[in-house]
Amino acid sequence: MRALVYHGPGQKSWEEVADPEILDDGDVIVRVDATTICGTDLHILKGDVPAVHKGRILGHEAVGTIWEVGDGVRRFCPGDRVLVSCISACGSCQFCREGRYGQCLEGGGWVLGHKVDGTQAEFVRVLYADKSMFHIPDGVSDEEALMLADILPTGYEVGVLAGGVRPGDVVAIIGAGPIGLSAITGARLYSPSHIVAIDLSDARLEAAKQFGADVTVNNTREDPLAVIKDLTGRMGADVSIEAVGVPASFELAVKLARPGGRIANIGVHGEPVALHLEEQWIRDITITTGLVDTSSTPTLMRLMTTGQIDAKPFITHHFDMDDFEEAYDVFARAADTGALKVVLTRGSE
Amino acid sequence: MRALVYHGPGQKSWEEVADPEILDDGDVIVRVDATTICGTDLHILKGDVPAVHKGRILGHEAVGTIWEVGDGVRRFCPGDRVLVSCISACGSCQFCREGRYGQCLEGGGWVLGHKVDGTQAEFVRVLYADKSMFHIPDGVSDEEALMLADILPTGYEVGVLAGGVRPGDVVAIIGAGPIGLSAITGARLYSPSHIVAIDLSDARLEAAKQFGADVTVNNTREDPLAVIKDLTGRMGADVSIEAVGVPASFELAVKLARPGGRIANIGVHGEPVALHLEEQWIRDITITTGLVDTSSTPTLMRLMTTGQIDAKPFITHHFDMDDFEEAYDVFARAADTGALKVVLTRGSE
Amino acid sequence: MRALVYHGPGQKSWEEVADPEILDDGDVIVRVDATTICGTDLHILKGDVPAVHKGRILGHEAVGTIWEVGDGVRRFCPGDRVLVSCISACGSCQFCREGRYGQCLEGGGWVLGHKVDGTQAEFVRVLYADKSMFHIPDGVSDEEALMLADILPTGYEVGVLAGGVRPGDVVAIIGAGPIGLSAITGARLYSPSHIVAIDLSDARLEAAKQFGADVTVNNTREDPLAVIKDLTGRMGADVSIEAVGVPASFELAVKLARPGGRIANIGVHGEPVALHLEEQWIRDITITTGLVDTSSTPTLMRLMTTGQIDAKPFITHHFDMDDFEEAYDVFARAADTGALKVVLTRGSE
Amino acid sequence: MRALVYHGPGQKSWEEVADPEILDDGDVIVRVDATTICGTDLHILKGDVPAVHKGRILGHEAVGTIWEVGDGVRRFCPGDRVLVSCISACGSCQFCREGRYGQCLEGGGWVLGHKVDGTQAEFVRVLYADKSMFHIPDGVSDEEALMLADILPTGYEVGVLAGGVRPGDVVAIIGAGPIGLSAITGARLYSPSHIVAIDLSDARLEAAKQFGADVTVNNTREDPLAVIKDLTGRMGADVSIEAVGVPASFELAVKLARPGGRIANIGVHGEPVALHLEEQWIRDITITTGLVDTSSTPTLMRLMTTGQIDAKPFITHHFDMDDFEEAYDVFARAADTGALKVVLTRGSE
Repeated sequence: MRALVYHGPGQKSWEEVADPEILDDGDVIVRVDATTICGTDLHILKGDVPAVHKGRILGHEAVGTIWEVGDGVRRFCPGDRVLVSCISACGSCQFCREGRYGQCLEGGGWVLGHKVDGTQAEFVRVLYADKSMFHIPDGVSDEEALMLADILPTGYEVGVLAGGVRPGDVVAIIGAGPIGLSAITGARLYSPSHIVAIDLSDARLEAAKQFGADVTVNNTREDPLAVIKDLTGRMGADVSIEAVGVPASFELAVKLARPGGRIANIGVHGEPVALHLEEQWIRDITITTGLVDTSSTPTLMRLMTTGQIDAKPFITHHFDMDDFEEAYDVFARAADTGALKVVLTRGSE
Repeated sequence: MRALVYHGPGQKSWEEVADPEILDDGDVIVRVDATTICGTDLHILKGDVPAVHKGRILGHEAVGTIWEVGDGVRRFCPGDRVLVSCISACGSCQFCREGRYGQCLEGGGWVLGHKVDGTQAEFVRVLYADKSMFHIPDGVSDEEALMLADILPTGYEVGVLAGGVRPGDVVAIIGAGPIGLSAITGARLYSPSHIVAIDLSDARLEAAKQFGADVTVNNTREDPLAVIKDLTGRMGADVSIEAVGVPASFELAVKLARPGGRIANIGVHGEPVALHLEEQWIRDITITTGLVDTSSTPTLMRLMTTGQIDAKPFITHHFDMDDFEEAYDVFARAADTGALKVVLTRGSE
Repeated sequence: MRALVYHGPGQKSWEEVADPEILDDGDVIVRVDATTICGTDLHILKGDVPAVHKGRILGHEAVGTIWEVGDGVRRFCPGDRVLVSCISACGSCQFCREGRYGQCLEGGGWVLGHKVDGTQAEFVRVLYADKSMFHIPDGVSDEEALMLADILPTGYEVGVLAGGVRPGDVVAIIGAGPIGLSAITGARLYSPSHIVAIDLSDARLEAAKQFGADVTVNNTREDPLAVIKDLTGRMGADVSIEAVGVPASFELAVKLARPGGRIANIGVHGEPVALHLEEQWIRDITITTGLVDTSSTPTLMRLMTTGQIDAKPFITHHFDMDDFEEAYDVFARAADTGALKVVLTRGSE
Repeated sequence: MRALVYHGPGQKSWEEVADPEILDDGDVIVRVDATTICGTDLHILKGDVPAVHKGRILGHEAVGTIWEVGDGVRRFCPGDRVLVSCISACGSCQFCREGRYGQCLEGGGWVLGHKVDGTQAEFVRVLYADKSMFHIPDGVSDEEALMLADILPTGYEVGVLAGGVRPGDVVAIIGAGPIGLSAITGARLYSPSHIVAIDLSDARLEAAKQFGADVTVNNTREDPLAVIKDLTGRMGADVSIEAVGVPASFELAVKLARPGGRIANIGVHGEPVALHLEEQWIRDITITTGLVDTSSTPTLMRLMTTGQIDAKPFITHHFDMDDFEEAYDVFARAADTGALKVVLTRGSE
């Protein structure tokens, strides 16, 4: 089969490789019908994720068709249309028993395209299949379902649920890339009174409005703290969500929160941040971090089925898998191309 | 009457001042029968709390007898024996309606000995009395009840409840001064499997053992992370509680927590800390800060009545109020004197 | 002034009575600009609420203008436009400290038009005013705000919050009168996947659709259990809310819930119900009951300001206060008149 | 091997049967080293549990040694000492993903000695072994661990956790048999101010005292409501736990709860109960039911290791498995024999 293979920092190619095989009773082989590229894949390609070795097939998001199942698989049969989640779960370790699948101790968690071969390929082996995949109901398209592999549950679980968004809240969301827009999508489910999107790019803020932010702040020109103070009678945001991953945006998130407020970090950070405990020790704040567990996927899938979540606006570009390298290029130059999520589908045979 | 008056950094005296008066319908005047000194009072005396002006009577903890009541007071009558809480609550602002009395927006919160005259005096005016004081049941002595004015609810609310301690948890508590010992006392109510006390002083660690820590670590000699890892199968503490207030101890608290763990900061900090998000973004941690609300005082009082909380070991020294300056000296030199809490009582007439 | 006075079972009149007076420091006198009639008032008129004595002015919902304030009132001034909540709260008893204002131990809770004179009058005395009234923001009309005096917080707190509605849930709501419709309004804030309204009247089910139910069941013709089973893969509703107050509807609510589901009772019941523990003991259900606390009023007011709650459809009839007896007649014959809520306003002078 | 076989109502025998075999990849065969009898087994023998067919081997509690493992088993090896839990969990269905293992939709839940052959045998097949068994640490004896197979997690999860016991609470526990005593054991972990045990038998109340109840009420002689009212300033219990399974005890549990209180039903009921909603609709109560999930077993095991849970007092009688019928007789006549739990061990070879 063909697959997108990492060959060390800066190097990748769409090339012929051996087909994957069932290695364990709980494995399945999935024919990939649609896959996509994540910001994390760009980090890997920069060499920032040392656990990814040369020769690894990248990708942790897919929709596909069951091709072959291991003897221990109970919930899936060849031919089933499935969502391959970015998180694999053994289901029996301490963390999986708490629903904290992202922290799985038995070889699960985020492993696809990281510690084992991933989904940017014609076929992929999925381990712990019964606990790591979901059937896709009729009425949900492949490409919409694909948005449930990672970004929608990430924004919802690590941003909205960890942040404890409640009806009537004022929610500040810093960063309006795919993850920030997912957090906006998830926050709306709880009917906050205001969703304030903050970004450096007017184009992204325009997208934020379409996803449901009612206030937007370009912080190259406006002071987000002043906007939030005006909206909240000088109090601060009930919840602020960091969806960028740099120190300045985390520090802004903390500053925007009211006494008693919550700060949910989603961003992937590469360096320490300053936490101003000399101001915050007395302010009853709660800060959370986290990796997605995809425990919310069934809920979000149901709301996609009823039309309450619309994932189509995430998808800005379509490619055939044979054009994988071009797709990477378009996605990497998002500021120019306006790319949010690019979808790659298998060519017709 | 006589009172302990702040005269600017480094200067205080026990001196004759005017008696307090009822200023508002909800006020009471309390005759102070027992009071104590808090670490915060030492901070004020260093000049670190600029809101405290010269001429202010210090102190925010007292047990006493109702002397006079304002027209709007419903729950207290002259002669009642009462606990004066360190937190005053209007009861009607947004924060008080949530039970977040420490953040009261209408002139409450921590005001005694800070923004209004305090309890280190023969008499004290208590504002919002119906919401800020508690009757003391028979069988609880003045000096035990006095430990409920600040330290016990602080350790319990800001450490144990915010930290979400649950049965079976491994709880690390950094700092074994009065607040850390209060956190140990509170944590025991939830039956953790281990309470690990960490401090630089063997004397304090000895106290921690008496209060209920089953493991103690002197981190001038031992590596707390190694101890916690050994206890938890390499996982980390379920909850870590910071009760010191310096960057190193907060950073240690974060390091000791397991994935999915909680870090509750109680310490009063004077400078920023480094939060290592480059390690923690993926670890599902929760960090909390807070000022005490004293919402738990009735619960803790009940457990004192049944003997399940024993506050007597906190009290290491007794003084007559006329020896207030000596009491400050003993408390300030705690490392030498072994002082935890010093109690000052009114002399017999 | 004139007021609607209860003269024993079946007897009431709109008549001249003495003006109310400030009795306590915390009281205010409110000029009533708009009031309404509640199903509870009809119960009182049947003689079903023995605590209501002859001579009592009825009514526990009002919007008005502050006329006079007691010495201890801090938050309101003459001329302020206010919502008078159906619940009065002392703010300092055990229950008020938990936000459980409906259970106030110090003469609060539901007292207006019950234990003290109520709001169906030109003026009303409101006790514990600082904790029992709310300012009305610009942009919210008197009659919309009036829906926040009782029905909207009741449906939201006792139905939706106690029932723990979450995004994606299937919610069954039994009874589509004003309280059931309030529960639908509140449930929508949490984005359930389906809201199933169940009633005996097609007209009420039509209203339910307009308020946001996407499935309606007339249980004179259809089997609600079959509908719910079909919607949920045979599982049952995640949450079922009883908004009628008769045994059959409570027993239906229990039957509709899935294993692990929640049943929130809002209805006012007059007799015992059968709870089928021989079936339910093993099903992990949670049943809740409750009186409204109006702790959610500020949240709901905010969502009314942003247009996320639209209360106008509740209001089917308008009367001048001088036509109070006709308004009672129209409201009592709701099946014929289609009345949901009738609003009475003071005549122009 | 030999096993205790059900032959229809009133009939059982300890007899020779075929050895169990691995039927599924996830199965193990366990050599039973210790087992016990549950009240449920007596119900089955009365014919009250129609799902149990003639020929079924009874029993759902065991401690043993792994004899053989299926190909898909990852956590256990032959020779491991294990606790066989009364609940089996597939780990991947909707309920297992929520930790609600007792409601497993894929052939798990309570199945041992019910829908498949059980543990009252020399060997037992355990399905879904990775999710349904636990290693036993050194220092915990077989017979103590055996108390974790059912009764301790049942009292803790269905009574204490569902009831939301908190420090300082007054907890009423109705029924002082093995389940009620387990609820007492579990409640103590949360430091209630009082645990009130209520039973008809002085012997059981004596046991309740030894397990940690500080107040006991024999309700053949005393009025439990009067006792609770006296203890709580006329308020009622914060939590009441039903551990009997008859209408009168459930109705008492409801009556004992304060406004805002919680009633946790553990008892297995055979008929409907009357719920007095005409009194309770306004009292903010919460009623829960449930089957154990054994999700708390690791926590309780840890507290057994540290000595904070002492299970030895549950064990009143010891038998060799060859005396199984005598053991049933002693357990069935608990009122005469004082039996709480009887332990059966394999004879020496």
